[in-house]
Amino acid sequence: METRAAVCHAPDAALTIETVQLAPPGPGEVLIEICACGICHSDHHQRLREPPSGLYPIILGHEGAGVVRECGPGVESVRPGDHVIPLSIAECGVCANCRSGRTNICEAFLADMRDKRPRFFLNGEPVAVMSNNGAFAQHMVMPERQVAKIRDDVPLDIACAIGCAVATGVGAALHTARVREGSNVVIFGLGGVGVNVAQGARVAGASRIIGVDVNPDRGAAAAQFGVTDFVDARAHGDRLVDHLRALTGGGADYCFECVGDATLMNQAIEVSHIGWGMSVLLGVLDPSATLPVPLTSLQIGRTVTGSYMGNMRGRTQLPGLLDLYVDGRILLDPFITHRLPIGRINEGFDLMLSGQALRAAVTF
Amino acid sequence: METRAAVCHAPDAALTIETVQLAPPGPGEVLIEICACGICHSDHHQRLREPPSGLYPIILGHEGAGVVRECGPGVESVRPGDHVIPLSIAECGVCANCRSGRTNICEAFLADMRDKRPRFFLNGEPVAVMSNNGAFAQHMVMPERQVAKIRDDVPLDIACAIGCAVATGVGAALHTARVREGSNVVIFGLGGVGVNVAQGARVAGASRIIGVDVNPDRGAAAAQFGVTDFVDARAHGDRLVDHLRALTGGGADYCFECVGDATLMNQAIEVSHIGWGMSVLLGVLDPSATLPVPLTSLQIGRTVTGSYMGNMRGRTQLPGLLDLYVDGRILLDPFITHRLPIGRINEGFDLMLSGQALRAAVTF
Ligand SMILES: [Zn+2]
Ligand SMILES: [Zn+2]
Ligand SMILES: [Zn+2]
Ligand SMILES: [Zn+2]
Repeated sequence: METRAAVCHAPDAALTIETVQLAPPGPGEVLIEICACGICHSDHHQRLREPPSGLYPIILGHEGAGVVRECGPGVESVRPGDHVIPLSIAECGVCANCRSGRTNICEAFLADMRDKRPRFFLNGEPVAVMSNNGAFAQHMVMPERQVAKIRDDVPLDIACAIGCAVATGVGAALHTARVREGSNVVIFGLGGVGVNVAQGARVAGASRIIGVDVNPDRGAAAAQFGVTDFVDARAHGDRLVDHLRALTGGGADYCFECVGDATLMNQAIEVSHIGWGMSVLLGVLDPSATLPVPLTSLQIGRTVTGSYMGNMRGRTQLPGLLDLYVDGRILLDPFITHRLPIGRINEGFDLMLSGQALRAAVTF
Repeated sequence: METRAAVCHAPDAALTIETVQLAPPGPGEVLIEICACGICHSDHHQRLREPPSGLYPIILGHEGAGVVRECGPGVESVRPGDHVIPLSIAECGVCANCRSGRTNICEAFLADMRDKRPRFFLNGEPVAVMSNNGAFAQHMVMPERQVAKIRDDVPLDIACAIGCAVATGVGAALHTARVREGSNVVIFGLGGVGVNVAQGARVAGASRIIGVDVNPDRGAAAAQFGVTDFVDARAHGDRLVDHLRALTGGGADYCFECVGDATLMNQAIEVSHIGWGMSVLLGVLDPSATLPVPLTSLQIGRTVTGSYMGNMRGRTQLPGLLDLYVDGRILLDPFITHRLPIGRINEGFDLMLSGQALRAAVTF
């Protein structure tokens, strides 16, 4: 079949709306019509990449939500009309990792990352997709293990948020760090991931949630997501670590780095409390980058960890985020700050990069 | 009073036995007669240091055990005749860290590290001590918060082991990693710390304990401490990580680095299981060294941590190691492989550095 998609043809190029060919769903596959898709910094990072890690042409997008239109033979967990999230990480349910109940890193996902068979074609040539996903297309075909059925009483231009930023942030607090009730939390960076860490920490019962950013507007906006104290990093310069240690009475129980900056990652480690502080590193560095960690900082009882999509399993745990939303425990409406038709997707990238949008979503 | 001590006068110099002056115990202080003291790699690392981090002359030693001979006014928890361990890390019991129940890093310890008032003098000049300790002296004076009372039915040339290596290894398994029953463990380095990690993992019920070393003799000796599989690192070269992943069915639940080598630390991280593997870094690098950690390795759900003395609180938890010993759950007799009178302490260092001694102890 044919469908419309926003295609990136070269590093850092603007996206163009094209008619692409899509192979129909085979056995165990699902055809999804995407209704809305958030624009994420990861999309931008992907389109900055030069080959070979940058693949062109490519369909970006990995925060989609849509409706099942057709199921190939053998699909059992969804049927046409179901509201779904196309997942970047498969949950096969049967591999050792899925069965462990301890991780969302399904072994099928690891295989998927190596298997880059094209699903889209443009003038007969294959088109790559981002993160085994590619939701800046009006239709897409996914294996059933990458399709999460969600409740259908949440608008899809709200539900789309849970597929990446909300899962990453809320999951990092609830599933990676397992924030304890009454603890204090420092969040470096109050963008799409950071405010969702705050929401997760609030759900967990953290008593103090300190947000650090260089943009006071973000600090003000973050209060509704649970941030109790805003710290303007620029006001403290070299004394930021000392200031945050003092604010937390000696160090934070949990620090979350949500920017992707090695200096901030090390500041997070230093701010975390001696003896038990945990730093969760969520920001993205260059894939080959190594973080220089002062060993002695760890050896006085600190822990450093990370997670992918907040360690939330896509089919069995992710849909529960919408229950938290409907129950009023996390906010999604003020998170989706801008909506644009797919034809204006480049404006959406600009809104994100300028910091104006917490999250812009494109709609079909 | 006067006492005998092994003194190091210059970087990498042999120790000489000297008569030194010791200030008597003041209020809240305890005079201890040391009966035995283990020789640890940390003693060697300290004596290699150039000023300013190397202080000379210095009394090394931090694995002592002895008997209380005199208590200053106000000392309540011990009395003359008690068997005790002089602690490198204070446990004041009242600071926020002590009260947290989550860490052995007492705030008094952090203050002690900055406060270097001399207790020993040689010809009227101050003599430094290692790690707030200095147990290569026949007598020493310690504040009560650095004195752990132990049961008196264990010979002191056995009990001395628990003050550093046994606490570091057993504690890392039980208190830092909290090894789960049935899990698998990989230990890099089967020296004094590594074999004690194995003991701790065995106590915790680990089902498989893989020891990695370049010395097959150590592999053979490690079996009695709980190592179920020995891997000769030299036999696998560049394929060591792959080999260990295969042996553990995809990755280790826990890795422990007990050598102090940045390459091994990174191998430990890579061997730890995607999604939940934890690497505990116990080896010592240069104090200013940073470990380059590949961020993406952490972001697929791995954790890196460290601890100091196995995160065991010195006065309330450390003595329990001797209960484990008396109950036959950990071994100490085969750990102390050599005993030497204090006058032959330099031979003890040689036995350690050549790998012949798992632990050599000097006795007074
Ligand atoms: Zn994203
Ligand atoms: Zn799976
Ligand atoms: Zn030691
Ligand atoms: Zn204390």
